[in-house]
Amino acid sequence: MFKSFKRFLIGRPLKNEAAEGEKLGILWGLPILASDAVSSVAYAGQEILITLVPIIGVAAYGQLTILSAAIIGLLILLTLSYRQTIESYPNGGGAYIVAKENIGTLAGVAAGAALSIDYVMTVAVSISSGILAITTRYTFLSQYKVWMCVGVVLLLMIGNLRGVRESSKVFSIPAYAFMLALAVMIIIGIFNFFTHNYTPVVHSAPVLAASSPVVLFLLLKAFSNGCAALTGVEAVSNAVPSFKDPARKHAKIVLLLLAMLVLFLFGGSTILTNIYQVEPDKDHMVIIQIATLVFSHIPAMFYFMMITTFVILAMAANTAFTGFPMLVSVMAREGFFPRQLSMRGDRLSYSNGILLLSVASAIIIVIFKADVGALVGLYAIGVFIAFTLSQTGMFLKWFRERGKNWLPKAIINGFGAFVTSLVVVLVAITKFDKGSWMVVIAVPVMIFLMLKVKKHYVAVTLQLRLKPEELSSIDISHDVYKNRVIVPVESMNKSSVRALRYARTISENVVAFNVSIDEESGIKIRERYDLLKTDIPLIIKYSPFRKVVDPLLKFIESAEYDYQKGDMITVILPQFTVKNWWHNLLHNRTWKYIQRQLLKHKHIVVSTMPLQLKDDAYVMKNPKYK
Amino acid sequence: MFKSFKRFLIGRPLKNEAAEGEKLGILWGLPILASDAVSSVAYAGQEILITLVPIIGVAAYGQLTILSAAIIGLLILLTLSYRQTIESYPNGGGAYIVAKENIGTLAGVAAGAALSIDYVMTVAVSISSGILAITTRYTFLSQYKVWMCVGVVLLLMIGNLRGVRESSKVFSIPAYAFMLALAVMIIIGIFNFFTHNYTPVVHSAPVLAASSPVVLFLLLKAFSNGCAALTGVEAVSNAVPSFKDPARKHAKIVLLLLAMLVLFLFGGSTILTNIYQVEPDKDHMVIIQIATLVFSHIPAMFYFMMITTFVILAMAANTAFTGFPMLVSVMAREGFFPRQLSMRGDRLSYSNGILLLSVASAIIIVIFKADVGALVGLYAIGVFIAFTLSQTGMFLKWFRERGKNWLPKAIINGFGAFVTSLVVVLVAITKFDKGSWMVVIAVPVMIFLMLKVKKHYVAVTLQLRLKPEELSSIDISHDVYKNRVIVPVESMNKSSVRALRYARTISENVVAFNVSIDEESGIKIRERYDLLKTDIPLIIKYSPFRKVVDPLLKFIESAEYDYQKGDMITVILPQFTVKNWWHNLLHNRTWKYIQRQLLKHKHIVVSTMPLQLKDDAYVMKNPKYK
Repeated sequence: MFKSFKRFLIGRPLKNEAAEGEKLGILWGLPILASDAVSSVAYAGQEILITLVPIIGVAAYGQLTILSAAIIGLLILLTLSYRQTIESYPNGGGAYIVAKENIGTLAGVAAGAALSIDYVMTVAVSISSGILAITTRYTFLSQYKVWMCVGVVLLLMIGNLRGVRESSKVFSIPAYAFMLALAVMIIIGIFNFFTHNYTPVVHSAPVLAASSPVVLFLLLKAFSNGCAALTGVEAVSNAVPSFKDPARKHAKIVLLLLAMLVLFLFGGSTILTNIYQVEPDKDHMVIIQIATLVFSHIPAMFYFMMITTFVILAMAANTAFTGFPMLVSVMAREGFFPRQLSMRGDRLSYSNGILLLSVASAIIIVIFKADVGALVGLYAIGVFIAFTLSQTGMFLKWFRERGKNWLPKAIINGFGAFVTSLVVVLVAITKFDKGSWMVVIAVPVMIFLMLKVKKHYVAVTLQLRLKPEELSSIDISHDVYKNRVIVPVESMNKSSVRALRYARTISENVVAFNVSIDEESGIKIRERYDLLKTDIPLIIKYSPFRKVVDPLLKFIESAEYDYQKGDMITVILPQFTVKNWWHNLLHNRTWKYIQRQLLKHKHIVVSTMPLQLKDDAYVMKNPKYK
Repeated sequence: MFKSFKRFLIGRPLKNEAAEGEKLGILWGLPILASDAVSSVAYAGQEILITLVPIIGVAAYGQLTILSAAIIGLLILLTLSYRQTIESYPNGGGAYIVAKENIGTLAGVAAGAALSIDYVMTVAVSISSGILAITTRYTFLSQYKVWMCVGVVLLLMIGNLRGVRESSKVFSIPAYAFMLALAVMIIIGIFNFFTHNYTPVVHSAPVLAASSPVVLFLLLKAFSNGCAALTGVEAVSNAVPSFKDPARKHAKIVLLLLAMLVLFLFGGSTILTNIYQVEPDKDHMVIIQIATLVFSHIPAMFYFMMITTFVILAMAANTAFTGFPMLVSVMAREGFFPRQLSMRGDRLSYSNGILLLSVASAIIIVIFKADVGALVGLYAIGVFIAFTLSQTGMFLKWFRERGKNWLPKAIINGFGAFVTSLVVVLVAITKFDKGSWMVVIAVPVMIFLMLKVKKHYVAVTLQLRLKPEELSSIDISHDVYKNRVIVPVESMNKSSVRALRYARTISENVVAFNVSIDEESGIKIRERYDLLKTDIPLIIKYSPFRKVVDPLLKFIESAEYDYQKGDMITVILPQFTVKNWWHNLLHNRTWKYIQRQLLKHKHIVVSTMPLQLKDDAYVMKNPKYK
């Protein structure tokens, strides 16, 4: 039942060869990867205004223009830098790979840790903003926003478990629609402004003059919030291998288109905000408020704008669903994350990575109550750490290789590293009280854990490893040691007779072993046992503590058993398999417990003997069992 | 770590013989069993008043006296009836046993189902009332009442997991203290009334005249609520075997003392309520309001009263913690509940029953938000169904046996059965809208499930059973079939070599089996395998779906493997045991999954080969592994 439900949600399993067919072209690649950057339009400007308006009043709108220009400048710099990365790393130039290869393992792990955290934040921030776009209009839904967000996480999870391309197609058309809607809003909005009179909402008076030093700090903080708009760049360079051939070219085109889109849409909406000067607050999204004004006579366009805003933000979250599982699978393959994260599921997606991302982001959303303002505090710092490490790596690469045109390339990446490292420091300091301290703690903790995980895998490999010369020196063509069997017997029934019979076939040295709580029950079982024609001896031990494992281990160590070092001991345990799942609740798990305890001893093998129980109604009706 | 934490909470394990020492005398038996009935004083009167006062105003206090008298009369009848049950059933005369033996299995199961539900309700109602006693005074704690209740459930759970007598001692002294406090309050309260002037709180005017037919229904409803005071009687007769010898005599004395205590305390507090006429409401407990008035100049006595009220109610819940696990263990032994419920834990308590009761009552408390008024709606019906079945059973017993003095005995139990059956109908009808419908549905559903469980156990026994003549006809002194071994091999390492080596010792017919995703990796493993000196053949199959079980089963069924019906196949799987628990997260559970799948086939035995991983740090340092 569970299986067919899973099939219904996820689809039928795909063969490995199908992986090739799931790759992205420009048409589908652009919306799936650009959405993170483009969607930031919906909250980056908003967060800048929320920081500034209460303190410096209408002057904030002027500052917004300047800050937006700075952010767009940063975007151009990052685009130039990352074009070089894509060129050099056709197999995926994520910060992890670039930093690891050019700086060292620790730098790579640091970049990976920082990025993973940021992917989780991308999902949390984007989905919370997406739901905010809806609750700005339908305020009565505000009380359910956390559960609406978790619902969207679940939908994305299912979509992504089904596989890359299919899930991107689901979202691509409405994503293009958002860009269209926003473009229309910018054009109509500016046109309206020059043809109609519009009086901006009256704001509270400024508390501080725009030139006060406190305001400088605020501006930097606002800039930090705005930097959330740039987190999407990394996704493209990380995803180079998921592009169709020629992958590098496609990736570079997508990156360029992305930058141009952000330039136009972020720039345009900044101008609109300046014109309409709506009052920002945490329950009402600026861009939706503007849409209410611009499309006041075209309600259809307003709803179109609202819905596509929601969808583009869901798609931005989807970027993380593409990037995160890919990143952790690469790192898992090298042993920095649990191995399970490197395995493709039935539909070739990295299912465990998708599940991990879903659970982590849902937890963050619930903890922060889907409050975009609070979430943005933790956002962006991770990705800028990754930018810095990646750009530093690229700089070192050019500097070491000194190939053709190395100097301008090194300068671009070096300057990129310098600027992004400044942003890291800026974000960490200005948003320290807003939660960036959590990321500052979480990154080193994650690095520590990842190194621990790696160490474990290395230790396991070392313990299991057999070099070719060792392998060829081993001879198992004859028996090297003796195998002895112990059959724990609770009572004499078909199950225990079957186990004894099996034991006879695998060893000459078998004993049946019973633990009774008192002599009376010991005598009873001995009487029954003696009816059986067998040469297998029955050992009975008494345990007042109603335990089996301890008396069994004591017996093995006793002189009576005469255990020789090197011998293996096989213990045979019964296991019922039942017809109805709920029947499992009716059989106690003592055997499972015994198995776990025994397997702590390296000379003990536990054999599980299945016993298929028949359907209850069948047994009750069948005269054979009367 | 978990283990030592468990030891700390529960105590060290006890031997079976220790069970005898845990039995109850009168001194400890009275408080642990009487508390249910005595504590009802705290809410039964209150619930009567809440039903009546808003409708008939001060006239309610007069009716309270009449209803209390009726309830006390019912108590006397039940006491007489149950003395006869204790006399006849020295090994525990719970309704389940009495109904089963004298009416039939279905009646027994019905009584058991009804009682189990009521035990859960006892815990929920008593603890919610206990916390209400505290929040009546400290109203700011009201918002946390649900979690306070759940906390008390946990404490009781831990106390009971430690064992019967110890947990009773924890509560006995404060329970006696409550009786003392209540007695003092009754005496001082009545004395004060005659020496001081006291003006009752002004009540809202009556809505209906006391003679209206609607009021008759209300009175019956109020009576139903008051019947909650009588649920403790069953606990005594059920618990006969936990009394010290002579158990019957001790139990009868305890029952008598209990009836006298309730008579005095319930009667006395009814008089007090009549005198002080405080206004009942769901957030303020009547008895605590009276204590505020009576002890207005003796604050120490007020707090003493409040705290002991809480404790007696916690003890009432504790009665259920004694009764429920005992009841379900008896029924589990006969196959009507999962077997696990019949097993004694480390400390000889029926741990699983205790856990089940804790979880069920905590869920009920959370669902009903610890609202006593709402919970009382579901209460009492179960126990009165059990009373009816038990008394009917006793009546039939006397009638069938016709021993000495059978007629008066039959009349007492017959009349008891008649009256309690009237109460069942009354409670079901008058509280139908208040939740008794849930119990009316739940009882037959539980009966259905219990019969299903029984059927499964019978079917299992029939399938496993070997009659002595069958047993003696079996001969396993020689091998009757062949055992063949398959060793799934993922790569050639120490673990797989060890498995192959073991396989050689248990069978002549071994194959190594590998599933590769493509030819390249197949060739690689073949090269490594060929280095090993062995006569075991390696079979390689290709699976594009990255699965192991399906290709393995297909291979077993193939002509290539030449499986002969009757042969057993042993599949050897590796299992890592790790040094740190969290390392388990780093190894995937594929093997567990494979084991589960394979065990669905009755001719396949799964052998688990343990592999103890060494400490990571040790391996990394040890030159042996370099």
